[in-house]
Amino acid sequence: MNSAPSIQKLLDELGRLPGIGPKSAQRIAYWLLNADRETALRLAQAIVEVKETVRFCSRCFNYAEGDLCEICASPKRDAGIICVVSEPRDIPPIERTGSFSGTYHVLGGALSPMEGIGPDDLHITELLQRLASEDVREVLLATNPNVEGETTAAYLARLIKPLGISVTRLASGLPVGGDLEFADEVTLGRAIEARRVL
Amino acid sequence: MNSAPSIQKLLDELGRLPGIGPKSAQRIAYWLLNADRETALRLAQAIVEVKETVRFCSRCFNYAEGDLCEICASPKRDAGIICVVSEPRDIPPIERTGSFSGTYHVLGGALSPMEGIGPDDLHITELLQRLASEDVREVLLATNPNVEGETTAAYLARLIKPLGISVTRLASGLPVGGDLEFADEVTLGRAIEARRVL
Repeated sequence: MNSAPSIQKLLDELGRLPGIGPKSAQRIAYWLLNADRETALRLAQAIVEVKETVRFCSRCFNYAEGDLCEICASPKRDAGIICVVSEPRDIPPIERTGSFSGTYHVLGGALSPMEGIGPDDLHITELLQRLASEDVREVLLATNPNVEGETTAAYLARLIKPLGISVTRLASGLPVGGDLEFADEVTLGRAIEARRVL
Repeated sequence: MNSAPSIQKLLDELGRLPGIGPKSAQRIAYWLLNADRETALRLAQAIVEVKETVRFCSRCFNYAEGDLCEICASPKRDAGIICVVSEPRDIPPIERTGSFSGTYHVLGGALSPMEGIGPDDLHITELLQRLASEDVREVLLATNPNVEGETTAAYLARLIKPLGISVTRLASGLPVGGDLEFADEVTLGRAIEARRVL
């Protein structure tokens, strides 16, 4: 391709990012080359900083900078209701709806016999410990509306209901087979408001 | 948004990139958070490296790591034909065709009275110096087929033709694999005017 090795390296690294094909990578690389030094280095620095400072919340396994994530650390959040999600990336879309003011619990995946992911691979023990030690009245299961997410929700409902805690599930209305990460605020907000008792 | 400040900063910086909206930025940010440390830092490092090592080729103003770009430094390239482009990003698509083995000259923009870009803002003097000192038999004008690009090509043709050097222009016509039904009038008009005898 006769381009400088450092440009080729940047193209390779950009091409690894999700949703970035060769043309997008090239567009971004030339934008960075053309950008002033500070702008480009701010992005590099932001990547370094995020990898150096971000770890998992010791309580809910969301991404956090300190011991607790911003949500667990906030006194404004209702600790009586826990929203269970598969991944940290599922939290921002729920936050954007403004329909939920409780806390979260991140499982770190979903049950999938196909991929060999069982209950012990998820933060389920830690969820049960929270239910035992915290004063929780409701668990809202917000795993994805696909096979793995539904399986996980059914499994958790079976575990939690005997504890006398109300177990709810996001209402359907989300396109089945879709991805929670990309749901629009209105649809997702409706789904939270119309959550069903399992 | 209740997300960690360093994550928010990364989202802001990613959102500045061309073609990256808020959802793509989020998808990339979570991918980076989830990626192993080395993968994420390789991208940061590639950005830093490109800003530290890449400058402009002293001869053609393409991006280069040394004094000359890889194309100018290659003994395999035909120095007798210079392809004139607006920006360094216009070079890779031409290289990918495999149809050109000459050298390049990057103008650093195109003439645009609307934006106040005149001949002195482009590397035109340097092009004329190359034509005087190098043994050039053809200049291929490969500025974009839009108003600014055509104006720039016409201006350069008027300057260069009196030097006894052959001046050529990229052909306009229907895109290969395209559909006549959807071609715009100007393109189709050009294709008719420049029709070839079979």
